[in-house]
Amino acid sequence: MLRVMVVGLGPIGVGCARAVRADAGLKLVGLVDADPGKVGRGILDLTGPPDAAETGGEGLAVVSDIDQVTADADVAVVATTSWLDRVAPQLRKLLGRGVAVVSSCEQMLWPWYAHPVLAKDVDAEAKRAGRALLGTGVNPGYVMDALAVSLSSIVRRVKLVRCVRRGEASVRRRPLQAKIGATLSADEFGALARAGKIGHMGIAESVALLAAGLGCQVPPGSVTVTLEPVLAEQPMQSALGLIEPGQVTGIHNTAQWQNERLRVELDLTMAVGTPDPIDVVELEGPVHVRLKIPGGLPGDSATVAAMINHLRVVHEARPGLLTMLDVPIAGCRGQDPAP
Amino acid sequence: MLRVMVVGLGPIGVGCARAVRADAGLKLVGLVDADPGKVGRGILDLTGPPDAAETGGEGLAVVSDIDQVTADADVAVVATTSWLDRVAPQLRKLLGRGVAVVSSCEQMLWPWYAHPVLAKDVDAEAKRAGRALLGTGVNPGYVMDALAVSLSSIVRRVKLVRCVRRGEASVRRRPLQAKIGATLSADEFGALARAGKIGHMGIAESVALLAAGLGCQVPPGSVTVTLEPVLAEQPMQSALGLIEPGQVTGIHNTAQWQNERLRVELDLTMAVGTPDPIDVVELEGPVHVRLKIPGGLPGDSATVAAMINHLRVVHEARPGLLTMLDVPIAGCRGQDPAP
Repeated sequence: MLRVMVVGLGPIGVGCARAVRADAGLKLVGLVDADPGKVGRGILDLTGPPDAAETGGEGLAVVSDIDQVTADADVAVVATTSWLDRVAPQLRKLLGRGVAVVSSCEQMLWPWYAHPVLAKDVDAEAKRAGRALLGTGVNPGYVMDALAVSLSSIVRRVKLVRCVRRGEASVRRRPLQAKIGATLSADEFGALARAGKIGHMGIAESVALLAAGLGCQVPPGSVTVTLEPVLAEQPMQSALGLIEPGQVTGIHNTAQWQNERLRVELDLTMAVGTPDPIDVVELEGPVHVRLKIPGGLPGDSATVAAMINHLRVVHEARPGLLTMLDVPIAGCRGQDPAP
Repeated sequence: MLRVMVVGLGPIGVGCARAVRADAGLKLVGLVDADPGKVGRGILDLTGPPDAAETGGEGLAVVSDIDQVTADADVAVVATTSWLDRVAPQLRKLLGRGVAVVSSCEQMLWPWYAHPVLAKDVDAEAKRAGRALLGTGVNPGYVMDALAVSLSSIVRRVKLVRCVRRGEASVRRRPLQAKIGATLSADEFGALARAGKIGHMGIAESVALLAAGLGCQVPPGSVTVTLEPVLAEQPMQSALGLIEPGQVTGIHNTAQWQNERLRVELDLTMAVGTPDPIDVVELEGPVHVRLKIPGGLPGDSATVAAMINHLRVVHEARPGLLTMLDVPIAGCRGQDPAP
């Protein structure tokens, strides 16, 4: 039975807490969130009415800091921030308690891209602590990076990798709809995008992980990223209210990188009202391989699942700041009751 | 630079030898085949005219046994047989020389299914020798097993996994066309199938690996396998000659297994003249995910690539008789020159 602490109780963290409660092989032992509006609340107060399968942790109350969790934990789910430098103090506290970490922090997917020096330090600290730290998720973490590397294992040469993800954001959580700028004007979008306050995080990290899996090192800053708004052509509803024609429905986010032997192109659309959602992974070389997931992989449930499925993996992994290229396939080995 | 020995010089082994020669990170140091018609022959005599990228090993001649390879090797590619009990003496000789192994032996994909006692012994021997042994390939090894486990990492519950592979055998190697019974009568097919002399090897191993990746143990003998011929409706050419209407074009091979919480269904057609070749992986549960590879993954080149891409992986892996569930994603990290 793995003892699990959940740090960060936004929708993803709460989803993880529920998934931990639903799995007979996992035990929820701590809930952490810095938000004063959440501190002191119990699990059922956060999650609402539980599924029949969800048990355990009823006596827990949210504490404001990792230090205040009294129970021992084996692994922590960390869903607090997208930035490695902001999550690093949390990682250090967890390492200090001997706790391994699975995180949805997008920069942790390939921590050497945005923060190579800090990543090296954290890696050394994890090795000293004898614990593994892993960034994962569905995007970044799988559908525009690790899946392409997996597919490349069955070809001998790749000169171009192209991943396209067209996601329908109307089924996604409210913070995601805010993050992609739904309901903004194009001008508001531009200002917030320039300030780095909206958009999808982690596309450059996806490129760096993908290229590394194909044997190429992506230097910090070398990925070309574009971010444009998708504008509504007709009125549509979102979790944030009505989107009028001309207002923003979401993002079109691309990334390109190449060296003398490999080119990587990622093309992500995440918007309310996206027609024909799909994921495509394409490898070009002497052999051409094209993989499609019509409808696209689900976002929020998949991110939660990726984190929960990797708890066992990170618990058994060698110590260090690891990536999806370092660990075996997780698989869905949960001990949820039969549906 | 990894030093590589190739054991078994049928089309897959020869393809591997060529791929080793084309990769600047790999060095071909030994060629082994028991066939007296191959012993003593040089690499170019086996492969025919090389690509520009293929260099190294020109001085090597095929020897009849692993013991006769004089050079030290780090890793061996073993493409000799489909049966674990037949490959085991070769694995033991290689372990005795301190050589790790990647093999296309289909039973090695999940060696505990057909030979649980032998697998346990070989695993212990590999651990004592400090080397890893791994069975891999495209099928079994990826498209009807490991890929489905990978995809399952982003869901929390799976009650049904269905993999469909419809392959066009006319583009495959001659021994594969023979193995699927092309040009036989239905009666000849039936007799050879009952004798276990034709058909696809490894479908039960795919089921066992897939289920293990989803947390379920498949007991030896518990997979239900069917094998039927696909019959020609019109005359068609094959590598083995003309196929008349009513004669066999290939196989339809299925496997099913279930327990109280998971059902696995694999459905493989491999025949000359298959319309609409495709690979499909489908997960059913609270979330439904369907992945398609239109055209299907290539067979022979993908098997060679899977083996070559795993040389580095198996060299770095922990000792033991490992499976695709134990190792990180290989990725196509070869040092082939840019195409």
